[in-house]
Amino acid sequence: MRPAAMVLKKWLLLVLWVQECCWGSGACGKVLVWPTDASHWLNLKLVLEELSLRGHAVTVLVPSANLLIDYESFSPFTFEVLPVPFTKETFTAALEDFLRLWLYELPNLSYWEGMAKVVKVMAVFTEMSKQTCDSVVLNPRLIAKLRQEEFDLLISDPLSPGGELVAELLEIPFVYTFRFSEGNTMERLCGGLPAPPSYVPAIAGGLTDRMSFVERMKNIIFYALQDVLFHQVFWREWSQYYSDVLGRPTTLCETMGKAEMWLIRTYWDFEFPRPFLPNFEFVGGLHCQPAKPLPEEMEEFVQSSGEHGIVVFSLGSMINNLTEEKSNMVALALSQIPQKVLWRYKGRKPDTLGANTRVYDWIPQNDLLGHPKTKAFITHGGTNGIYEAIYHGIPIVGIPMFADQPDNIAHMKAKGMAVELDLNTMKAQDLIDALNTVINNSSYKENAMRLSQIHHDQPMKPLDRAVFWIEFVMRHKGAKHLRPAAHQLTWYQYHCLDVLAFLVAWAAAAVFIAVKCCCFCCKKCGRIDKKKKME
Amino acid sequence: MRPAAMVLKKWLLLVLWVQECCWGSGACGKVLVWPTDASHWLNLKLVLEELSLRGHAVTVLVPSANLLIDYESFSPFTFEVLPVPFTKETFTAALEDFLRLWLYELPNLSYWEGMAKVVKVMAVFTEMSKQTCDSVVLNPRLIAKLRQEEFDLLISDPLSPGGELVAELLEIPFVYTFRFSEGNTMERLCGGLPAPPSYVPAIAGGLTDRMSFVERMKNIIFYALQDVLFHQVFWREWSQYYSDVLGRPTTLCETMGKAEMWLIRTYWDFEFPRPFLPNFEFVGGLHCQPAKPLPEEMEEFVQSSGEHGIVVFSLGSMINNLTEEKSNMVALALSQIPQKVLWRYKGRKPDTLGANTRVYDWIPQNDLLGHPKTKAFITHGGTNGIYEAIYHGIPIVGIPMFADQPDNIAHMKAKGMAVELDLNTMKAQDLIDALNTVINNSSYKENAMRLSQIHHDQPMKPLDRAVFWIEFVMRHKGAKHLRPAAHQLTWYQYHCLDVLAFLVAWAAAAVFIAVKCCCFCCKKCGRIDKKKKME
Repeated sequence: MRPAAMVLKKWLLLVLWVQECCWGSGACGKVLVWPTDASHWLNLKLVLEELSLRGHAVTVLVPSANLLIDYESFSPFTFEVLPVPFTKETFTAALEDFLRLWLYELPNLSYWEGMAKVVKVMAVFTEMSKQTCDSVVLNPRLIAKLRQEEFDLLISDPLSPGGELVAELLEIPFVYTFRFSEGNTMERLCGGLPAPPSYVPAIAGGLTDRMSFVERMKNIIFYALQDVLFHQVFWREWSQYYSDVLGRPTTLCETMGKAEMWLIRTYWDFEFPRPFLPNFEFVGGLHCQPAKPLPEEMEEFVQSSGEHGIVVFSLGSMINNLTEEKSNMVALALSQIPQKVLWRYKGRKPDTLGANTRVYDWIPQNDLLGHPKTKAFITHGGTNGIYEAIYHGIPIVGIPMFADQPDNIAHMKAKGMAVELDLNTMKAQDLIDALNTVINNSSYKENAMRLSQIHHDQPMKPLDRAVFWIEFVMRHKGAKHLRPAAHQLTWYQYHCLDVLAFLVAWAAAAVFIAVKCCCFCCKKCGRIDKKKKME
Repeated sequence: MRPAAMVLKKWLLLVLWVQECCWGSGACGKVLVWPTDASHWLNLKLVLEELSLRGHAVTVLVPSANLLIDYESFSPFTFEVLPVPFTKETFTAALEDFLRLWLYELPNLSYWEGMAKVVKVMAVFTEMSKQTCDSVVLNPRLIAKLRQEEFDLLISDPLSPGGELVAELLEIPFVYTFRFSEGNTMERLCGGLPAPPSYVPAIAGGLTDRMSFVERMKNIIFYALQDVLFHQVFWREWSQYYSDVLGRPTTLCETMGKAEMWLIRTYWDFEFPRPFLPNFEFVGGLHCQPAKPLPEEMEEFVQSSGEHGIVVFSLGSMINNLTEEKSNMVALALSQIPQKVLWRYKGRKPDTLGANTRVYDWIPQNDLLGHPKTKAFITHGGTNGIYEAIYHGIPIVGIPMFADQPDNIAHMKAKGMAVELDLNTMKAQDLIDALNTVINNSSYKENAMRLSQIHHDQPMKPLDRAVFWIEFVMRHKGAKHLRPAAHQLTWYQYHCLDVLAFLVAWAAAAVFIAVKCCCFCCKKCGRIDKKKKME
């Protein structure tokens, strides 16, 4: 990535291009952003750049310690740096703990043991999130300054609590942009998104939309467990925090439910068809672009692959190193395929690296996936990479690790464009077989091309749709006409349990009275008979 | 309306404009149409004209006896006339019977008596529908001819059975375009559309999305009654017919469920926000256009209204006459308002007609509603008229009669841009009061303008969206990626009743065993105690 060059180019464009208007009305808006770090930021940044290009002023609230939000370089955004008491190193260490737990410990633990450990690790992140929130809500001068700015809208990510709280304090509408929450819990319980468990698999449950009896049962139980976990563990502390700050009893979920729009980073090329609401817009792949030419040296290497073509390999920005054993095994496998391999890897060069494999600190992933020589993509299954593969129609060998990755690869497998491997158990031959399958079995390429066609054949580009709805909320100070009345109902009213209870009670009473009447009549008749007999 | 002139103009445009492509690929499609008469046709025709203009060949299967589908005049469409054994007069008489029942008899009957009468009248239409179907499916030469044409797609309306059957016989995908079915029964049971009864009011139940306990109960019961009515009465005969024709056991509902897209003639300016599926697209108001200049005489009359402005009045194409008493009452009321009134009415001129009111056989409704002098619209509440009022932001006095009209007016009332009157009970003063309210209480105009803004502020125009998805289905021979897996489930699997039954049984068994164990232990302890005591 050359983000600095890209941003500079766009920024210059912005300055040079004297823009007359943003919304056709001559008025430009002011956008406040509560970002989430890592790949979330990479995706959101593109939306913000587009908003900047259209003349809106974008201010990002950024913690002084973060991974990828570079607030010191030249940028089209204004950064309001939030001084937090933790360092980038503390944050990175917590992330590494989390990754270690997910990759190496969780597979050997039961659900409950695993969850207990996850909750413990998550508590560290919660603490840092709260410290970030404190740096805004406990800073009256900053709040006053932000109020004075009269922002039109706040863009947030429900995975980073705080955005909706700041929006409430500033009394401005807010829009969410994100990929998912485990078990769609936030979308369902706070956003009102319906998810019939018979054909809507809970995200991260690893199921598809075609479920057997046992799978449907698993799905229901998974939904129920997530609901309890979120309500009783993850949200409880936050709800108290929100109530304290706002000075009235509320919950995190209730505040989240006030989002005007939920911009979800997937689309029907990826999702299993499911019910959704008018204030949910699926804008997956908004960051995808046609491939640009490769650097000269890289292009030469790619061209040297001849008819066999190349394989692109990256495990994303979070995994920089593998264990020595794993990296040697992987390199050995790659050395045995006829394709040339471009591997993004920051660890020590493996001893078994073949002549056909080159290791890079960084690769222009989108440009490589869009290259005509590319035959397959080995990926951890992050949403951004998955969408680049869909965009360019490239089959996938998925080695998912954590978060949405297992779910992403499950989707791609179900849609017939991916083979899945398990990093913990895979052998060199498994990787070779998987690559041979997706490259030589034509159905994988065909399915990838089919999904690519679906992705490209939309009424409107995803980035344009995302920007349209953000601007819509600014123009109309909300999007209340898209908000379902479900938000006004309690959970038992929503499921009509009160009505059903009443109807059942009524029916039971009717049956009871009927039976009693019958008994009474029978007795009466019996007595008359007895009397007659006695007479 | 001057349909002939309009069609001629568009047709000439089509011939003159040498179109290079339809889908950007140089290929134009062939569209077969199974239309529904009256206002449905007026709306669909605009979509078909747009498809024609984009270079697609449109063939309409039209019964020789119909109301508004003029197959003898010059047209951009090819008409395949289906010789049916009934005449236009029989059809009109059946319609009048239906209207009489709905307007004057139903209000005085109980639900069950009313339904019995409706079912009886509907049987006449079913018979005519079947005769229309027979004219295709029992005509092997026509079927062979249609097969030879190699159509890419069939457009149908679920309210006129037969379209989906013809599509099945020709083995081509089909798309629905319509407003609604009573209680959303077809959309729910056949299309898989979820409708939580707690906040999604059954269409034609007259409720809104904010329901009290009693209203939610009414809604649930209404849904259930409609399900029984459709399954046991309306669909039974058709399911047999479809099974006979296709030579395999099937149902009407199963066949309808194969629709690739459901293009619904409403949008979120009109609908209460509700869950929907990716293969449902809301394209309401696709027929609306900016107002064109009025005929000279009409413009003069409108201008003569001064600052008071005008009122536009039409009860639609189905009601040509009122009883003499009613028309005199209405005319008397209109004579007492300061506005000028343009009334579309074909009956005898009422004796009480005021100098401020002019009666017309036909009015350019859309152009009048878009005129700056227009203050209010008195309408029966047909979807087309409602959308013209929304498009131009004109408050409504609704006098609903049948079909979707009561529901349409209920929506407009709930959104604050309409007052409702009952044709059977209203007095002259009620009409005067209603007009004064919507004209002088500014909230009605404000709400109308708010809905108008929502309508105009869409990412893409409704007509363009409708055409996009029709062309999408042609390009990809379907839209399977938007079809939920719910269609593969039985009703009890869909609601997970089998899983719930299993879990309840399992829990009951566990409790039973636990209780038995306790009892056993207690007994054992009891015996030991006894023994000890005895010792």
